[in-house]
Amino acid sequence: MRIDRKRLEHSIEELGRIGETPNGGLTRLALTDGDKRARDQTVAWMKAAGLRVSVDRMGNIFGERAGSEPLPPLMMGSHVDSVPTGGKYDGQLGVLCALEAIRTLNDERARTRHPVTLAIFTNEEGARFQPAMIASGVMAGKIALEDAYNARDRNGIRLVDELERIGYLGSEPCVPRPIRAYLELHIEQGPLLEEEGRSVGVVEGIVAIAWSRLTFTGVQDHAGPTPMRVRRDAVVAAADVVRAVRAIPARVGPEMVATVGRLDVSPNITNAIPGRVVMSVDVRDPKEENVTRALGLLDQVVKDAAASEGVSYELEHYWRVPPTPFHPEVVGAVERAAQSLGVRYRRILSGAGHDAQYMAAICPTGMIFVPSRNGRSHCEEEFTPMDDIEHGANTLLHVLLDLAQ
Amino acid sequence: MRIDRKRLEHSIEELGRIGETPNGGLTRLALTDGDKRARDQTVAWMKAAGLRVSVDRMGNIFGERAGSEPLPPLMMGSHVDSVPTGGKYDGQLGVLCALEAIRTLNDERARTRHPVTLAIFTNEEGARFQPAMIASGVMAGKIALEDAYNARDRNGIRLVDELERIGYLGSEPCVPRPIRAYLELHIEQGPLLEEEGRSVGVVEGIVAIAWSRLTFTGVQDHAGPTPMRVRRDAVVAAADVVRAVRAIPARVGPEMVATVGRLDVSPNITNAIPGRVVMSVDVRDPKEENVTRALGLLDQVVKDAAASEGVSYELEHYWRVPPTPFHPEVVGAVERAAQSLGVRYRRILSGAGHDAQYMAAICPTGMIFVPSRNGRSHCEEEFTPMDDIEHGANTLLHVLLDLAQ
Repeated sequence: MRIDRKRLEHSIEELGRIGETPNGGLTRLALTDGDKRARDQTVAWMKAAGLRVSVDRMGNIFGERAGSEPLPPLMMGSHVDSVPTGGKYDGQLGVLCALEAIRTLNDERARTRHPVTLAIFTNEEGARFQPAMIASGVMAGKIALEDAYNARDRNGIRLVDELERIGYLGSEPCVPRPIRAYLELHIEQGPLLEEEGRSVGVVEGIVAIAWSRLTFTGVQDHAGPTPMRVRRDAVVAAADVVRAVRAIPARVGPEMVATVGRLDVSPNITNAIPGRVVMSVDVRDPKEENVTRALGLLDQVVKDAAASEGVSYELEHYWRVPPTPFHPEVVGAVERAAQSLGVRYRRILSGAGHDAQYMAAICPTGMIFVPSRNGRSHCEEEFTPMDDIEHGANTLLHVLLDLAQ
Repeated sequence: MRIDRKRLEHSIEELGRIGETPNGGLTRLALTDGDKRARDQTVAWMKAAGLRVSVDRMGNIFGERAGSEPLPPLMMGSHVDSVPTGGKYDGQLGVLCALEAIRTLNDERARTRHPVTLAIFTNEEGARFQPAMIASGVMAGKIALEDAYNARDRNGIRLVDELERIGYLGSEPCVPRPIRAYLELHIEQGPLLEEEGRSVGVVEGIVAIAWSRLTFTGVQDHAGPTPMRVRRDAVVAAADVVRAVRAIPARVGPEMVATVGRLDVSPNITNAIPGRVVMSVDVRDPKEENVTRALGLLDQVVKDAAASEGVSYELEHYWRVPPTPFHPEVVGAVERAAQSLGVRYRRILSGAGHDAQYMAAICPTGMIFVPSRNGRSHCEEEFTPMDDIEHGANTLLHVLLDLAQ
């Protein structure tokens, strides 16, 4: 059994037009009008494929294809939200490959013992509402529904109000439930598969991730008549931390990454000494103890920077997930499927978080990676060749046939 | 002859309520609804004081009190726009002290040979539209009217469209014209007057100022799976420049100041390596040649930071004004007035730009400073004691009586 490459390619193109940027990327932040249109389009396709569609209280969308027995469903899915000026593969590719697998089952009039469910998770990226993967986090019981509802975007708009506004505040409880297995196909977002000429990554798990929020409060003042000797400049302290964060991985371990991705300056005008900076620090490593060491170094670095500039600070380590090993049964099934299809593959670890991370807490979980050209993602240049996508989607289909029986 | 302290205090309080922040500061950006209401209020007071009000093509407002002879007017003024979360003294104090001086002339039925004109200049701060002092710049013939009209705020809105929207796109040409002298009372925005216990600064001139805009373009990528070795992070390059700018004054001269006040990161989310940073650099020194040296150092610093991180850059030195010495006749008149009133004063140089800077190009110009508590301005804590304001306003009144005869 093989998926229909042309049909899949067509769906990727069509869904990619919703929120498309002038340079061929995608800006489709969670629960915006663009996200709503992408959801509507996907739901229409689900219904056309005969799926029974439901929406839960976090706006997660499920489309179920009945099995021959009353068993827990085999679930496949990903997300359709994007980062700002992101690409057309992160998230939506996993949704559309899963949809294509189901369409193929329909073509072949194949029956599975377990039902097969296509899932679209809300706000995976965390670009608009923090933390990321908030909706699978609620489903796994790791984030309280109320906290998720009260997450606010930069303009102070609440997640729950946006869910309601776009018509995706569903009535189904968002709680753990029996699931045969959860499978997510996703782009690698790193350079390894492409460097080695492989089409599929058999994902063994996800690295540990820690997010911190740092606020420096100095003294806002006029940039002209304020002598250098009396300044307490929040941006100068922030610059020290940016530099130090860049240097942390070399001090801790070769697989660690550390990033300042967000930095907001107040009042942010040319002729005022910045009184306040809010910035993010993202730390990842395969080993939990390395993340702990890095956060300890960060604490010291921030303290030193604040003391040196005479500013105050608040440092919150507000989100942290340990390494997530995937289920041996699912990892094994992915590897067997790739082998049986003759696809070039390797075992790999994910440096990025995915909804699969939370799903692993409630059911056997695994992921399939396909290559990212130049290792790039979260940008308009994000790209995966159609040959690799086809191999990935067929692998997904065959894992599904294996695990849903 | 003395001004009416109570009346002046009342006007300061009343105008300060338009755009007031919860902490008692002011957010009244140029040509916003708040600016319009502050203009409307001031125009109403001008008319109540019997002034003939006109508006020019840059939205500058003039209120004229007739003189006994057909001579060029003695002009006093300042601005009513503010920076974001700024204070209630920067700008509006100069306008209201000038208004109070005119009200006092009315009380005393005093006649002056020269007409006396109160001026309010558009967009002095440069917080919304760049460059700062754009409207006095047009009036002095230093900025083309068309360039000023096409200045855009962060949302891409043009200055001319906002002038029209708030009803202050006047018909009078905004060009140099005969003026007896221009006088501006303003807060010092530095610590010197307060440190020395003086109420009035006799301003001898304004330091040289240079504004630069710097853009780093790196490679936007996912913060997780992108190894440190391949990163080209725009924020890391920006941090190097922030640090280097802080160090430039110590290398050039004891009176130099250098500031990174604005820094915008793209895409500015926790889990993306920043692909782009746009930042400002503000350099000031009493000596022109020191500014030139500092910009040379900046060029080198930016080049090194870009090379070190493997990012590209664009550095524009887009605005520069030489030191502005004020007119000896006006400076002398300010000093005589302070002396004759028994006010404690000192001669002083302004580290901040003012509309007086451009006015000095078309007529004899001078300024009067009053103290800033803790030297602070462009912040909500901005404050000047009423005793000092009274001394400053009386000094202004007496300079006016001197020069308008």
